[in-house]
Amino acid sequence: MLHRSRGRRMAGLTLVEGPKVFSRMVVMGVVPETVLMIEDDDATSALCRTRGWDPVVVSREVLAAASDTVHPRSPVVTIPIPGSSAMRERDTLLLMDISDPGNVGTIIRSAAAFCWDVSTSGTTADPWSPKVIRAAAGSHFGAHLVTSSDPMDEARSLGLDIVATVVAGGDQPTRTRRPIALMIGSEAHGLSQENLGEADQRVSLSMDEGVESLNAGVAASIFMYILASKNKAP
Amino acid sequence: MLHRSRGRRMAGLTLVEGPKVFSRMVVMGVVPETVLMIEDDDATSALCRTRGWDPVVVSREVLAAASDTVHPRSPVVTIPIPGSSAMRERDTLLLMDISDPGNVGTIIRSAAAFCWDVSTSGTTADPWSPKVIRAAAGSHFGAHLVTSSDPMDEARSLGLDIVATVVAGGDQPTRTRRPIALMIGSEAHGLSQENLGEADQRVSLSMDEGVESLNAGVAASIFMYILASKNKAP
Repeated sequence: MLHRSRGRRMAGLTLVEGPKVFSRMVVMGVVPETVLMIEDDDATSALCRTRGWDPVVVSREVLAAASDTVHPRSPVVTIPIPGSSAMRERDTLLLMDISDPGNVGTIIRSAAAFCWDVSTSGTTADPWSPKVIRAAAGSHFGAHLVTSSDPMDEARSLGLDIVATVVAGGDQPTRTRRPIALMIGSEAHGLSQENLGEADQRVSLSMDEGVESLNAGVAASIFMYILASKNKAP
Repeated sequence: MLHRSRGRRMAGLTLVEGPKVFSRMVVMGVVPETVLMIEDDDATSALCRTRGWDPVVVSREVLAAASDTVHPRSPVVTIPIPGSSAMRERDTLLLMDISDPGNVGTIIRSAAAFCWDVSTSGTTADPWSPKVIRAAAGSHFGAHLVTSSDPMDEARSLGLDIVATVVAGGDQPTRTRRPIALMIGSEAHGLSQENLGEADQRVSLSMDEGVESLNAGVAASIFMYILASKNKAP
C-alpha cells in the first residue's frame, strides 16, 4: 500500500530500503515505524541494538513482498513522512513538473550536496516515493523539502530572485546577493509560458550546437553547482 | 540476441528505439539495417520515405519481442555498431568502472553537449547497449566514443593532463592549456589506488559536509561543464 502515493498519504508512512539508506537515516536521527530484516543482516541488527529498536526477522519472500522492488536489500523499513516544510529565504530549486522519480531523486541528492532547498509542485513525482528515496541515496534526511501549491507566489513573497532555466537562449547563470528560486520545467516540455513570463531572468548552459538537451537531473545539478554562493568562482 | 553484449558483438548490430532517437539517428546520417514500425507510425514512415528505406510494418507484439523493453515505442531499429575510435588530443572522459547503463548513457549525453570525448574501459557498461543508448537520448551519433584496453597509457602518450576525480580532498577543478583526460571511478568504490597513483592531479567538487556523494552521472557532468574550455568563467 505504501507503493502508491495515496496509500502513503493515508498512512503517513513511506518505505526505505537497503543498508546504505538505512544507516544514513539512523545517523540523521530518523526513527522507524518498523524494521524488517533477513536473518543474517548483522549490520542492521547491530544498528537497531544501539538505538533500542526491535527489528522483525523475516524471510526473503516477505522482505520482497513488503518492498516495491523484486530483489530488495535488507532491511526494508517504514518511516513516518515528515510534515511539509514551508519555503524559506534560501536558494530553492522549484521542480515544476519533473515526472521521473529517478530525476527527482538525483536532484534531491545534488541539492543536499550543494545546500539548496527543493520545492515540488505540479506533476512532479512524489518526493517521498520509495523510487525517489532510492535514487536520492539517503539525501532526504538532511534536505529541506517543500511542497508548494503556488511556489512562484511563495518565492515572490520571500523576495527571492525568480530565475527560469531554458534549454537555449538564456543568459549565462550568475547571481545577485539575494537567494534564488530556480525553476526547472518538465523533461518533455520545459517550463510553461506562464511560468516563463513570471521569471526575473532566463538562464541556459552553454552547449554544443545540435545537441538537444541534457538529462533534467544533470541540468538542474549543474545549475545548482554553479549558482551556489560558495562556488561563484570555480 | 542484441539485448546481450555477446550477441551485439557477434552481429555487429545494436537496437535503437522510439521516435526521438530514430529522428536523431537519421539527422546524423546513420543508415539502419532494419526498421520495424507499427502500422500507424506516420512519422517513421515519412522519414524512411525521404531516405529511400523500406520499413517493415509489424504488430505491437512483434515490436515488443524485437525490443528489450516491455512497451517499446515505434520504431525499433537495428543499426551497425560503428568501429572503435582511438583516443585523440581532445578533452576525454575516462570511464573506468561505471557499471550502471543509465549513468553511462547520461554521461554520453552530457559529453556530447559539452564537447568531450568518452573512453570506456574496465567493467563499464557497454556504450552500445540499448539501455545506454536510451539513456543518452540519441547523443551517441555525434559523440566520439573510444574503447580502450589501457586508457591511461593512451592518454599519457597523447600528452593529456591526467586528472582523477575524488569525492573529497581534491583541488578545485581548473585546467591548463593541454587537453584533459578526466578519470571517473566506479559508483560504489571510486577510482582504484593504482589509477589514483597515475594521476597528475586530483579534483573534487565542493559539497556540504556530511553528504556522501553525488550520482556518478551528475558528478561527471558537472566536472565536464566546469572544465570545458569555453566555460572557464561561468
